[in-house]
Amino acid sequence: MITGRLIGVGVGPGDPELITVKAIKAIRSVPVVAYISANGRPSLARQIAAEHIGGSSKEIKVTLPMHPSPEVAQSAYDEGASRISAELEQGKDTAVLCEGDPLFYGSFGHLLGRLHGRYPAEIVPGVSSVMAAAAAAEQPLAFGAEGISVLPATMPENVLSARLETADTAVILKLGRHIEKVRTVLETLGLVDRAIYIERASTSGEKLVPLAELDSVETPYFSLILVTRQRR
Amino acid sequence: MITGRLIGVGVGPGDPELITVKAIKAIRSVPVVAYISANGRPSLARQIAAEHIGGSSKEIKVTLPMHPSPEVAQSAYDEGASRISAELEQGKDTAVLCEGDPLFYGSFGHLLGRLHGRYPAEIVPGVSSVMAAAAAAEQPLAFGAEGISVLPATMPENVLSARLETADTAVILKLGRHIEKVRTVLETLGLVDRAIYIERASTSGEKLVPLAELDSVETPYFSLILVTRQRR
Repeated sequence: MITGRLIGVGVGPGDPELITVKAIKAIRSVPVVAYISANGRPSLARQIAAEHIGGSSKEIKVTLPMHPSPEVAQSAYDEGASRISAELEQGKDTAVLCEGDPLFYGSFGHLLGRLHGRYPAEIVPGVSSVMAAAAAAEQPLAFGAEGISVLPATMPENVLSARLETADTAVILKLGRHIEKVRTVLETLGLVDRAIYIERASTSGEKLVPLAELDSVETPYFSLILVTRQRR
Repeated sequence: MITGRLIGVGVGPGDPELITVKAIKAIRSVPVVAYISANGRPSLARQIAAEHIGGSSKEIKVTLPMHPSPEVAQSAYDEGASRISAELEQGKDTAVLCEGDPLFYGSFGHLLGRLHGRYPAEIVPGVSSVMAAAAAAEQPLAFGAEGISVLPATMPENVLSARLETADTAVILKLGRHIEKVRTVLETLGLVDRAIYIERASTSGEKLVPLAELDSVETPYFSLILVTRQRR
């Protein structure tokens, strides 16, 4: 029996038109689609791709509870990988829908780590939230010999500060309840005036505001801060 | 007279199916498409998008000579911006086709800098070569609190070395004739065994090889090195 292929499909940052032709073809061609539903919310990736999922496709929802401990998260990925594996064993190609790009901080990496090597894998890269945020800000991420540092706000404060100090352009992800820590670090480094806050880029809920004018003390998961060292 | 819109359109990393629905719609809807032809080669962005360009569309080719001096490059962008501006003044929306993403090291940034504020602008983000390379390597770029450092090989050696030393995952772009410098830095840092060389990701000319096994002394522009600190 030939096993199915595991296909990680990036569906883009939110705007359903920012999906690629290749992703649409992959989603339409498979008998099984899987996706992750975290924090009790419906899967954004499924919402983005909804119009391309066939009515006869089987759907596998991998559920992560609110604020899971590492052990609970690992066990949810174990169970998800096992359910996907059962389909692959039956020769059914399975597309895992991923917001943005599958390998850019996606939960897909956790499933791939469990299934890689056992089944043929394919990745369909997608437009990430970073590119959508830069597009919303109409702000080049980098030119010439400048570097770009992608930094999760979940980093320890001293690490975040050291990395920001040497960054040309920085993109700070996963803000959530870390927004005040990030703001403090940027203030200390004198970078607040170069920082733009962008929420839900490319969607109808898109919000873009200079960090200095942001009054939130908690921000959604799909938000980021773009810091440019050079004025454009 | 209402001026036209300047639309920066990311057409993806090379595989014509890695273009987004939004990019296709933008290209089909405009009377004028522009693109950059560098180093005497045809525009890759135009090749990727070819099937979507209408027969009646006007095309503007902005030509950069081989290895232009900064002055020559600036003057080529000046002239390109001026030709695009002439179309926008006539109310014609103009799509600038960009490989990968328009704002990720693209020449589009140079045109945007010259036209921004004078005309309404829109950016259609695209799948970048970084995401395509990770997909080819089937290698997650980052998990959790790890950072990603995007580093052009054109950086001075000491800067490149310092940035690599603190990076979790590093993506080294613009290799060209800098490949030996990069190799030396990675050897000194003991990172060669974590480095994968990827050329023309997502295209029929895709090549993927551990850096330790690469024998080229010069590499094409569309190549990069992916270095992961953690074994996956």
